[in-house]
Amino acid sequence: MAVKNIVVLAFSGGLDTSYCVKYLKHDLNMEIHSVLVNTGGFSQEELKSVEDHAYKLGVTQHKTIDVVDEFYAKAIKYLIFGNVLKNNTYPLSVSAERVFQAIAIAEYAKEVNASHIAHGSTGAGNDQVRFDLVFNIMVPNAQIITPIRDQQLSRQAEIEYLKSHGVEMNWEKAKYSINKGLWGTSVGGAETLTSKEALPEQAYPSQLKKSEACQITLSFEKGEITSIDGESIKPVDAIIKLNELGNEYAIGRDIHVGDTIIGIKGRVGFEAAAPLMLIKAHHLLEKHVLTKWQQHWKEQLASWYGMMMHEGQYLDPVMRNIEKFIEDTQENVTGKVYLTLAPYHFQITGIESEHDLMNSKFGHYGEMNSGWTGEDVKGFTKILANQTKIYYAVNKQAEVEAT
Amino acid sequence: MAVKNIVVLAFSGGLDTSYCVKYLKHDLNMEIHSVLVNTGGFSQEELKSVEDHAYKLGVTQHKTIDVVDEFYAKAIKYLIFGNVLKNNTYPLSVSAERVFQAIAIAEYAKEVNASHIAHGSTGAGNDQVRFDLVFNIMVPNAQIITPIRDQQLSRQAEIEYLKSHGVEMNWEKAKYSINKGLWGTSVGGAETLTSKEALPEQAYPSQLKKSEACQITLSFEKGEITSIDGESIKPVDAIIKLNELGNEYAIGRDIHVGDTIIGIKGRVGFEAAAPLMLIKAHHLLEKHVLTKWQQHWKEQLASWYGMMMHEGQYLDPVMRNIEKFIEDTQENVTGKVYLTLAPYHFQITGIESEHDLMNSKFGHYGEMNSGWTGEDVKGFTKILANQTKIYYAVNKQAEVEAT
Amino acid sequence: MAVKNIVVLAFSGGLDTSYCVKYLKHDLNMEIHSVLVNTGGFSQEELKSVEDHAYKLGVTQHKTIDVVDEFYAKAIKYLIFGNVLKNNTYPLSVSAERVFQAIAIAEYAKEVNASHIAHGSTGAGNDQVRFDLVFNIMVPNAQIITPIRDQQLSRQAEIEYLKSHGVEMNWEKAKYSINKGLWGTSVGGAETLTSKEALPEQAYPSQLKKSEACQITLSFEKGEITSIDGESIKPVDAIIKLNELGNEYAIGRDIHVGDTIIGIKGRVGFEAAAPLMLIKAHHLLEKHVLTKWQQHWKEQLASWYGMMMHEGQYLDPVMRNIEKFIEDTQENVTGKVYLTLAPYHFQITGIESEHDLMNSKFGHYGEMNSGWTGEDVKGFTKILANQTKIYYAVNKQAEVEAT
Amino acid sequence: MAVKNIVVLAFSGGLDTSYCVKYLKHDLNMEIHSVLVNTGGFSQEELKSVEDHAYKLGVTQHKTIDVVDEFYAKAIKYLIFGNVLKNNTYPLSVSAERVFQAIAIAEYAKEVNASHIAHGSTGAGNDQVRFDLVFNIMVPNAQIITPIRDQQLSRQAEIEYLKSHGVEMNWEKAKYSINKGLWGTSVGGAETLTSKEALPEQAYPSQLKKSEACQITLSFEKGEITSIDGESIKPVDAIIKLNELGNEYAIGRDIHVGDTIIGIKGRVGFEAAAPLMLIKAHHLLEKHVLTKWQQHWKEQLASWYGMMMHEGQYLDPVMRNIEKFIEDTQENVTGKVYLTLAPYHFQITGIESEHDLMNSKFGHYGEMNSGWTGEDVKGFTKILANQTKIYYAVNKQAEVEAT
Repeated sequence: MAVKNIVVLAFSGGLDTSYCVKYLKHDLNMEIHSVLVNTGGFSQEELKSVEDHAYKLGVTQHKTIDVVDEFYAKAIKYLIFGNVLKNNTYPLSVSAERVFQAIAIAEYAKEVNASHIAHGSTGAGNDQVRFDLVFNIMVPNAQIITPIRDQQLSRQAEIEYLKSHGVEMNWEKAKYSINKGLWGTSVGGAETLTSKEALPEQAYPSQLKKSEACQITLSFEKGEITSIDGESIKPVDAIIKLNELGNEYAIGRDIHVGDTIIGIKGRVGFEAAAPLMLIKAHHLLEKHVLTKWQQHWKEQLASWYGMMMHEGQYLDPVMRNIEKFIEDTQENVTGKVYLTLAPYHFQITGIESEHDLMNSKFGHYGEMNSGWTGEDVKGFTKILANQTKIYYAVNKQAEVEAT
Repeated sequence: MAVKNIVVLAFSGGLDTSYCVKYLKHDLNMEIHSVLVNTGGFSQEELKSVEDHAYKLGVTQHKTIDVVDEFYAKAIKYLIFGNVLKNNTYPLSVSAERVFQAIAIAEYAKEVNASHIAHGSTGAGNDQVRFDLVFNIMVPNAQIITPIRDQQLSRQAEIEYLKSHGVEMNWEKAKYSINKGLWGTSVGGAETLTSKEALPEQAYPSQLKKSEACQITLSFEKGEITSIDGESIKPVDAIIKLNELGNEYAIGRDIHVGDTIIGIKGRVGFEAAAPLMLIKAHHLLEKHVLTKWQQHWKEQLASWYGMMMHEGQYLDPVMRNIEKFIEDTQENVTGKVYLTLAPYHFQITGIESEHDLMNSKFGHYGEMNSGWTGEDVKGFTKILANQTKIYYAVNKQAEVEAT
Repeated sequence: MAVKNIVVLAFSGGLDTSYCVKYLKHDLNMEIHSVLVNTGGFSQEELKSVEDHAYKLGVTQHKTIDVVDEFYAKAIKYLIFGNVLKNNTYPLSVSAERVFQAIAIAEYAKEVNASHIAHGSTGAGNDQVRFDLVFNIMVPNAQIITPIRDQQLSRQAEIEYLKSHGVEMNWEKAKYSINKGLWGTSVGGAETLTSKEALPEQAYPSQLKKSEACQITLSFEKGEITSIDGESIKPVDAIIKLNELGNEYAIGRDIHVGDTIIGIKGRVGFEAAAPLMLIKAHHLLEKHVLTKWQQHWKEQLASWYGMMMHEGQYLDPVMRNIEKFIEDTQENVTGKVYLTLAPYHFQITGIESEHDLMNSKFGHYGEMNSGWTGEDVKGFTKILANQTKIYYAVNKQAEVEAT
Repeated sequence: MAVKNIVVLAFSGGLDTSYCVKYLKHDLNMEIHSVLVNTGGFSQEELKSVEDHAYKLGVTQHKTIDVVDEFYAKAIKYLIFGNVLKNNTYPLSVSAERVFQAIAIAEYAKEVNASHIAHGSTGAGNDQVRFDLVFNIMVPNAQIITPIRDQQLSRQAEIEYLKSHGVEMNWEKAKYSINKGLWGTSVGGAETLTSKEALPEQAYPSQLKKSEACQITLSFEKGEITSIDGESIKPVDAIIKLNELGNEYAIGRDIHVGDTIIGIKGRVGFEAAAPLMLIKAHHLLEKHVLTKWQQHWKEQLASWYGMMMHEGQYLDPVMRNIEKFIEDTQENVTGKVYLTLAPYHFQITGIESEHDLMNSKFGHYGEMNSGWTGEDVKGFTKILANQTKIYYAVNKQAEVEAT
């Protein structure tokens, strides 16, 4: 009897990947190793339930890989350091985690010597590119199978196929497609398919629970969150806690409009309380401790880093080079940041840091001090004006001579 | 009898510039032409009162120059086109208008053949640089006099000097220094001199008046606002109207922390309802109608443009070159933008535009369509992966051979 | 009888495109409109000979389209304005012209209502992408046929097929693949397939003829060449003349190593005397007449422009925006540039321009003058040092307190 | 008896700094510690002679500080890594060494507890700013004295003053001001004060000695030169050797035109054989081993790094961040580079590296291979065209509807 091909399948337990299991097993006769890579969106119960479902569908092996810590250390950390908000809005909630899911799957595929890798992406979104890119680079010899993209079946056809293989479940289609992870939850469908409509209040998984404003203090060390209100906390736990807290205020909701990797425009709602609070708090701290040109270049590199991450190009070595730059800028990003949370919005009220360059010893903006004199500023401005002054004088003269 | 030197004095009617009049007249024996350049912060009554005060102090001539329309056409327009928020926060409310005040004064100085130009800036802020830069470039032969910067008198000393010249007024020092213009109002003092404290509610000139959310529609043509809720309106009037409307919701308040031109960090509060609403609305429209690389380069150029404007370097010819780029990107920035205003915050809910690239005819994000196939995306991704794939293969091999 | 499909074929008369004619005619039964778009690489005799050959092969219609002037006005002009040398070396000799050939073909295809467009590119280079990109964008409904890429025939197989259709010619394969155009000639093959070897002297189409150095003067007006040695000349004619002149000195040869659009590295030799002389002369003139920040941004935008042009993305609207910027910078790029040509190298010796900012009236570098004083520079430096001085003081103090 | 102020004087032994010794001693009654910081431009004999001269003039202490190795490790290394040629021409020969001289002097001033630092710069060049910037930042409490800049004496007046204090020497003024260092020699004066004239052959310190071309091989490891023609050599020695070799061919000469820190344009000749050879060789190696985006960002950061270095802003912490980025990109910049030297010019003929991404295993440019198919490229191009295709379709349609 011929040895079966081993396929590693990215498995979430939904209709599409359930179909994939049956298709890979029955039509392609493969040995299926299903994998769920958790980047923070699943509870232990959910993970167990997915695993049970996988075995029931007939996989040879199901594996849950927890990459939450790695996801923080290799991606979220840099997204905070870089204050990355795609198009000034979106913390890359889904984009970043897809890449780390793909990497974990690729590594697992190497481990089990898989000849094939399968995923349930359609041909219409970014995820297919993120998965394929990573697989092409990390396991170039494995063949990629994407039944949903290739066969373009309707939901109904998938349900029928599953039924014909003895799987009968209630595959109700939710009005909104919700995608939850540590770094935020995306909400797509209905209104987000238009350019005009906002998502209704009830489309968001979290609902406003508090009406009284509250104040919190976040402490950062070298750019990383280390405590909330004076209590030490690990970064991943801080993100979880800030998401819970922010969600009660319905903070961090917005709609992202942007360019997909495949060239069309896409629109998606999200709630990402912790990302928004952490990035805005971190950014304010940086405004106090970094020099002008550090901020200038950090912004450019981080914006590029976010774009590449979003488009799945995390493995380009330039990303490692950028991380080195960004990490080095965090040397003095240490201090406390004060926030006020209120329903639907929050405010970063101020910071305290021993690295604060707005240090009263060196003069206050708008108040004279001992560091320099008015004469110094006169000289400064005179020299600063030099080139433009010459420019106007030379070209006015050239004009006069030309007439 | 010797002809007196003519000095043009930037005059606001406050203590500092009142002192300047007396000083220039009595100590320097000059003929004073005082000028107030209005960039939208003064009512007709205020202008008249400043004029009366100037003549009472003894100026030879007082001139009010209205540059509101020019300020819009040569600066605000580009700040909206460029979605310029300094450090992601500040619409350059005061910075931009200073430059246009300086230019109007320089032109007036040429007109009246002034040998000197005076202004009341201290030696501690950005304004002195903005004024001096423009004067050095536009009227390099006029000598600049800055009595406040040079003499570093206390308020009390200035008041005594004025009293000794017969000027007795109630020069009460406000707790906050308020600076009003078309493009926003800055609020400095007390808390803004610290890194930690927020401005209290009552420090803001405008106070919350409405609690019920409302919706408005802004129409843009080639990047410029043309109507509010369907009614045609000129851009300057739209800004005035949106400021009034937004102020009732206490929208557009924040604190800007940034690098001053003289190298220290500065912190200033502001309320700028219209700038924030217009920029955010304009930006969302652009996300729908511009290509990815148009947005990428626009962002970089506009950020630089904002920095140079902030630092008074508006006259560098590169600013004209950047304006050409930015203006050219506005060709299709035409459409409607929908906003919801609520107390302390607002939301841009969506847009409508015939130039919207998120056009259903060319496929929806997340839904398959006729424009391309899954096979196309597979090929796309394979080629896109090529260089990084080769990079890993070559360097893994080099590593292996090295061992 | 069914109406035949009309196909427009990019035709050069070589083996590959000759094969295409026979294949499209006999295997696909199409009506063939062959087109040769001349971007300056063909003489009248060569064009006539290609036309005769096309009709002999059986095309319904052959069209020669001369786009030399358009190619200059819409591409070369901006490449000179931008001093564009890809990877600091390559004037984009072939890349740019491919785009304009593709555009002319796409327009012709629309004109004759072609349902198909064919070209002879292989699947291994940049040209296929340049052609396909333009066709996908400009005539999205036309189907693209690429027999050579699709069938991957050997030369021998193509020759046999042609023979079987009555075409017997001497299809000798040259050692080097030479590609001639107005903006330079590329030389590929043999050594360029290695990373190590240089092209031998005789591989270059032009050979050294002069040993005596000579001097020439180029005049520019708003960035465009207007005369050589005082004689007025149109830009296209100037390029032709400078190529002739430079080729006698074997000037402008080099090997370009770069990233292809499909991700692999490519290496190609070229001779491009006129491009190198014009770009280097134009660049020196700019160093004298543009401000520091004009040069800074021009360089960044032009480098991007060159990359996009190289990769066939000329039709992205950001390219038009960049052209507006670049064109606006050329306002004062007017003056004379002096060159000395010698065997294998040339030197730009100096310039003269009434817009020269190195104007003796405003002081010489290294000599004191009336524009400013040593005190001014002291003040300038003091203020310029401010932020870094504070940075060190604050962080040294933080360090001390931490111990 | 009062304790004298201690002044550290940057001393070269020329007329200006000799004047400074006498002036500081007799007019200011200071205790003088003269310092010569050698960055590679002085022989042991020259250093001894300067020392003798210093003591003869009456300094309390003379110190020679050799910073050649530090200058390489902290500056030249990064200038090579970054392929830094200011304005595409100038390897920053003098600019970079000034900064390291200033740093060494500042450190020495701290060591001897100097209350003052003096240097002999005039008020017309870049060097004054480079020195003052570093001193302001590193020893903010030391007062800076610049007798030449402040007093603006003529050469004759300085000579008379020295004579009156018993110093009679032959202070002949050379036609050209020559400034020699490890990283190149600058040549200023006469022709360089014009925009038009080239330097005559004899103005250059080195003269052509060889007419026969020769070939050399440079080996790099992680971006640093490690051997010449197979013989191991330390980087500093390699630079010395390549300068000697290149000077015999009169290689690496050019004239730099650029923006000075004080806003005027400056022009200076230089010979810098080793810098040019090393940078061009290193750059070619990088084109083979770095990815497209690594090169893209490296170029931008390195260009900024060069500008800041040139302008004396080496101490801004962003420079350290950029170094981290650049160093990280050098991981695979290992291999051999082949050069051919000929009179007045040289050619980089090719490279060999195990990290070469132009690896034949992954396909040759222009030749089909097993890594991808023509279909893949079709798909790639189709998706790549997507956004621009939609852009044209949407906007053409908008246009039609508008009519």
